[in-house]
Amino acid sequence: MILSALLTSVGINLGLCLLFFTLYSILRKQPSNAKVYAPRSVAAKGAPTETNGFDFDRLLPTAGWVKRAWQPSEDQLLAATSLDAVVFMRIFIFSLKVFGFGGIIGVFVLLPINFLGTQLDVDFSDFPNKSLDSFSISNVDDGSNWLWVHFCAAYIFSAVVCYLLYYEYSYISSRRIAHFYSSKPQPNQFTVLVRGIPVLSGSSCSETVEKFFTEYYSSTYLSHLLVRRTSKLQRLTSDADKVYRTLARLKSEKDPQQRFKRDGLFGRKVDVLDHYGKKLDDLDDTVRLEQSSLAGKEVSAAFVSFKSRLAAAIAVHIQQGTNPTEWVTESAPEPQDVHWPFFSSSFIKRWVFKLVVVVACAALTILFLIPVAIVQGLANLAQLETWFPFLKSILSLTVVSQVITGYLPSLILQLFLSFVPPIMIVLSSMEGYVSFSQIQKGACTKMLWFTIWNIFFANVLSGTALYRVDILLEPKKIPGLLADAVPAQASFFIAYVVTSGWTSVSSELFRMTPLIFSMIKRLFSGKDSDEFEVPSISYHSEIPRILFFGVLGITYFFLAPLILPFLLVYCCMGYLIYRNQLLNVYAPKYETGGKFWPIVHNSTIFSLVLMHIIAIGLFGIKKLPLASSLMIPLPILTLLFNEYCRKRFLPIFKSYPVECLVRKDKEDQSDPSMDAFYDKLSTAYEDPVLMPIRHRRSTDDHNSPLLPAVV
Amino acid sequence: MILSALLTSVGINLGLCLLFFTLYSILRKQPSNAKVYAPRSVAAKGAPTETNGFDFDRLLPTAGWVKRAWQPSEDQLLAATSLDAVVFMRIFIFSLKVFGFGGIIGVFVLLPINFLGTQLDVDFSDFPNKSLDSFSISNVDDGSNWLWVHFCAAYIFSAVVCYLLYYEYSYISSRRIAHFYSSKPQPNQFTVLVRGIPVLSGSSCSETVEKFFTEYYSSTYLSHLLVRRTSKLQRLTSDADKVYRTLARLKSEKDPQQRFKRDGLFGRKVDVLDHYGKKLDDLDDTVRLEQSSLAGKEVSAAFVSFKSRLAAAIAVHIQQGTNPTEWVTESAPEPQDVHWPFFSSSFIKRWVFKLVVVVACAALTILFLIPVAIVQGLANLAQLETWFPFLKSILSLTVVSQVITGYLPSLILQLFLSFVPPIMIVLSSMEGYVSFSQIQKGACTKMLWFTIWNIFFANVLSGTALYRVDILLEPKKIPGLLADAVPAQASFFIAYVVTSGWTSVSSELFRMTPLIFSMIKRLFSGKDSDEFEVPSISYHSEIPRILFFGVLGITYFFLAPLILPFLLVYCCMGYLIYRNQLLNVYAPKYETGGKFWPIVHNSTIFSLVLMHIIAIGLFGIKKLPLASSLMIPLPILTLLFNEYCRKRFLPIFKSYPVECLVRKDKEDQSDPSMDAFYDKLSTAYEDPVLMPIRHRRSTDDHNSPLLPAVV
Repeated sequence: MILSALLTSVGINLGLCLLFFTLYSILRKQPSNAKVYAPRSVAAKGAPTETNGFDFDRLLPTAGWVKRAWQPSEDQLLAATSLDAVVFMRIFIFSLKVFGFGGIIGVFVLLPINFLGTQLDVDFSDFPNKSLDSFSISNVDDGSNWLWVHFCAAYIFSAVVCYLLYYEYSYISSRRIAHFYSSKPQPNQFTVLVRGIPVLSGSSCSETVEKFFTEYYSSTYLSHLLVRRTSKLQRLTSDADKVYRTLARLKSEKDPQQRFKRDGLFGRKVDVLDHYGKKLDDLDDTVRLEQSSLAGKEVSAAFVSFKSRLAAAIAVHIQQGTNPTEWVTESAPEPQDVHWPFFSSSFIKRWVFKLVVVVACAALTILFLIPVAIVQGLANLAQLETWFPFLKSILSLTVVSQVITGYLPSLILQLFLSFVPPIMIVLSSMEGYVSFSQIQKGACTKMLWFTIWNIFFANVLSGTALYRVDILLEPKKIPGLLADAVPAQASFFIAYVVTSGWTSVSSELFRMTPLIFSMIKRLFSGKDSDEFEVPSISYHSEIPRILFFGVLGITYFFLAPLILPFLLVYCCMGYLIYRNQLLNVYAPKYETGGKFWPIVHNSTIFSLVLMHIIAIGLFGIKKLPLASSLMIPLPILTLLFNEYCRKRFLPIFKSYPVECLVRKDKEDQSDPSMDAFYDKLSTAYEDPVLMPIRHRRSTDDHNSPLLPAVV
Repeated sequence: MILSALLTSVGINLGLCLLFFTLYSILRKQPSNAKVYAPRSVAAKGAPTETNGFDFDRLLPTAGWVKRAWQPSEDQLLAATSLDAVVFMRIFIFSLKVFGFGGIIGVFVLLPINFLGTQLDVDFSDFPNKSLDSFSISNVDDGSNWLWVHFCAAYIFSAVVCYLLYYEYSYISSRRIAHFYSSKPQPNQFTVLVRGIPVLSGSSCSETVEKFFTEYYSSTYLSHLLVRRTSKLQRLTSDADKVYRTLARLKSEKDPQQRFKRDGLFGRKVDVLDHYGKKLDDLDDTVRLEQSSLAGKEVSAAFVSFKSRLAAAIAVHIQQGTNPTEWVTESAPEPQDVHWPFFSSSFIKRWVFKLVVVVACAALTILFLIPVAIVQGLANLAQLETWFPFLKSILSLTVVSQVITGYLPSLILQLFLSFVPPIMIVLSSMEGYVSFSQIQKGACTKMLWFTIWNIFFANVLSGTALYRVDILLEPKKIPGLLADAVPAQASFFIAYVVTSGWTSVSSELFRMTPLIFSMIKRLFSGKDSDEFEVPSISYHSEIPRILFFGVLGITYFFLAPLILPFLLVYCCMGYLIYRNQLLNVYAPKYETGGKFWPIVHNSTIFSLVLMHIIAIGLFGIKKLPLASSLMIPLPILTLLFNEYCRKRFLPIFKSYPVECLVRKDKEDQSDPSMDAFYDKLSTAYEDPVLMPIRHRRSTDDHNSPLLPAVV
């Protein structure tokens, strides 16, 4: 790629971003779009009333939203959203710091050295047509002493990144502890999930749990709730709820004429309400029947609640029975975070599933590109002409054929890629996690490795890698191979940051898909339906995408520093836009207390070590074997640093220490509202589908906008 | 090696064993050897009185000891010794089962197949001169279908070994739990060791500990004892104790004439007692001075005792402070098991030391043979003649020179090898372990890898391996390399089992070194001194030696099954002899409750996987690629089995579950003697050198035979 081509691409994408921004700042002011651009305030205050008067201001693009997104302090953001959202924003702050520092060194020190090299032997005079490679390390002469500058830069940059990692880890840990201290008593703090209950013959599961915990936690045991297998019931209730909502909407229609018009297909007007009413009654009866029959379908798992946080922590941390595969305990998730359908209880089953998922995930990640390549091969011009002969005349046009050959493969890749996050969610839920947060966390890690493998390595080793998985059996050759292939892809990844990064983040602001859906809905139903769910951010697809840019930035820092300014722009935009979205669009669905951060930390450490390995190979290729050998301690030191961080910070993200637990428990002792809390606690983990129908619906009506359903 | 040579070697070693047995059965009846062969009963009942009358029976070799060693049931053994000793004996029982099963298949199925092969093309008629290789798998024809029998044998044998491993793990876990239930309240069950105490400025370490635990464990905290740095004091007190003992002996001499005779060097008889008395007073004064000055030398570590076992377990399992590197807790060892001198307290320091030890250990293990080879090279005949010219005439004798060239290298190797266990102990103690049991456990693992590398791999890859550590960077080639080299060494290892195994175990019975020491002592001092220590078994040097034979047996099971009968003989002898020694000679120094078993388990899993890797390579070499590929699932299944065992049993060996702890705590509540126990508990972890001098000596006099000092 030459410089002018890059500039063109930057220009086009900058234009696109500006277009999105302008459209956004206009569209968001239209009251009809409130549910798309400010669902949180709609859920809190109700939809803004549609003023019929024409307002010129509403058509002017303004940048007020930028200020409103920028202004709130981190504490205000925490109060408005969740600690997870704050941690999510810290990824951008951390990236800004890293790329800011790296950018200064890269652009002002490394770039000139690269540019003044003569290895690639390109013409000096024709600046705009200069290949981007002349800005990369490939242009430095073999064996040149200037490479020692790169060597020092790698050391300094690694040290700074490690310092920033340490600082950030320590900052987020302290926030996590502070957040715990400031939290009100919550059911999940007092509850553990027990699986693998060894039911004795002659006594029920419930009795066994009761007996065990009254015997061994006599002073702190409060109550328990058995988990039941409810997948069938879940389907029934969701059907019944749908009918119930339709009925409710029909009843509340202000203009009776309207509903006859819409439901006129049934003929008589009385029929409509009657029809739905009967259907609902039938369904409710079935649900009640199923609920009563379910009482027996226990899965030998239970939520056990205690009177204090410390007691719950004891139950989690110390092995319960003499057989470690029985009475397996873990911290309970928040009640609204529980993922009811997947409740595999047997230890062995979960273990086997975990292994299967690991294998499936690895296979999916490594072999993903093979089916994609095959489908892409099938969908070429000639094939299309055979399948759809009537398209022949259109396909013979040069423009159309060029568009198809140019865009069809990448369209197919994108299509396949969009299936991956849901697949990862399914795989994670098969592992036996019991909460959405754990499932999303598991999927987040899986997606990260998937992205790194299928975008980074697949591009770098372009094709051959798929058939060279066996290179892992010859680890000696890896640095050389990477050092050969990675710098060559520098210009591709710079273009990737500009096109994919900038556009994805600005389309995140614009919310293209929900906007179109909302428009279609209004077009067909004439009016927005009242029921809508506040979306929640899908950490499992967003975090890996952002972290991948981190991997790119760190890896290419000393290979092709030109990438860093573009990443800086990406991070700035991302910071503003995601802040805006978190404040206005996404409602927190759960609170893990920042448990996503360790993924960010590990990904950064991986990027550093990857950079070091490439550096080792590169200095070897560049005929500077001394630098290559002197590079070897750097990854070792980095891994040791990581090991230290694991010991110093990771435990804080796993559970809370005695100090915190006891202090909070003591605070509660003087709190008169605790009795009411204990009462609520004993039913907090009731499976929603098992609640009496009326009761569930009344709570549903209250909660649904704040606590949206499944992912 | 040819068959007749092997038979000769077997004959010689069998003769040696018989000689040792005969000598033992005579010598052990001599009352003067009681301290060598039955120190436990001497410590319990005092030395048997020397009868002057001549008794002919005492000179007859009898086998009564075999019966006495065989008879006690496992429960009796447990009562007489410790659970660790029982677990130690289980190694032999387990090995007997494995080699018994393997021996039947190997000798009756595999051996005939190997023998009937024609690959090595040796003469049939000359049976005694047949090479041992014709009994190994090398003799089976390439590509022969008979190899599928070996293939099946490998699968069946692995399955049986895994079943036995599972059975044994489960049996020992249940014994461990049963032993805990039957144990009396012990200080270590109620106590935790806290390190990394963050001392606030303005308050002492003791106050900080007191404040923390009274606040967070208000209902269960009992007391604490600070740890102090006492290495200087330790030297002083041991000097003082020596003088004290000499003085005590002098005073108690029945015949005053004797002591003048012996101590006559000093001239006047009054002087002797006076001299020692003064010296003791001086030393005691210094000790007292040092003790009082030590009060300030705290190491920010403390033993904290609780009122219940559960509270101690809570303190161990749940992170204490918000900083995981502060208030680091671990279960306290038994009071007599504490290793006082090494008390590094800082988290970072211990972590760095651990890393250093890992590196040092790996370096020692991998590079051990290099200095040995160099010294062996220096100690050749020519070199000796240059160094010691006066030996020239002796060295020129053929016999002498042959002995020297034949035995000197192996003598030097043995000399170097004998230094290794103490080095491993030092390395382990540097890791920051606080008890002898942990140190020995650490050293045991290190010794195991050391033995496997330096005896197995160094012999198999003979020399080249030292310079081929980089083979680890090309894992693909490993199976082929091993399959090529391992079967070739079969006859060497058969001879090794016979010479090293049989002899080592029978000389263990004979206790050569202690016997000689005791004889020399009696010869020079005329009479045994009263002070002696009951030895304790060094698990860290015995277990790896036995496990190494396990590695040999499992690895060679299908390569050269001829090794198995010899191993069976070794195990039978070992079972009897170690039972005898545990009952009569070695006193338990600590009780880990069978924590050594996981090492045995892991070593067996390693052997199985090693066998599988060799099999994969071997079937490849033998031109049976299908068998080679079908072998690949076996190591994977074995490792999965191991993973399952880690989940199912390992937690039981780490700590006791709530169920056990609470049940024992409840038993204690009705026990009236608990108050007295709590009183004792608060001083149980007093550093012995810090006790008032008189008090220490009186307890010393009681305890020393049962609780011998440092390893």
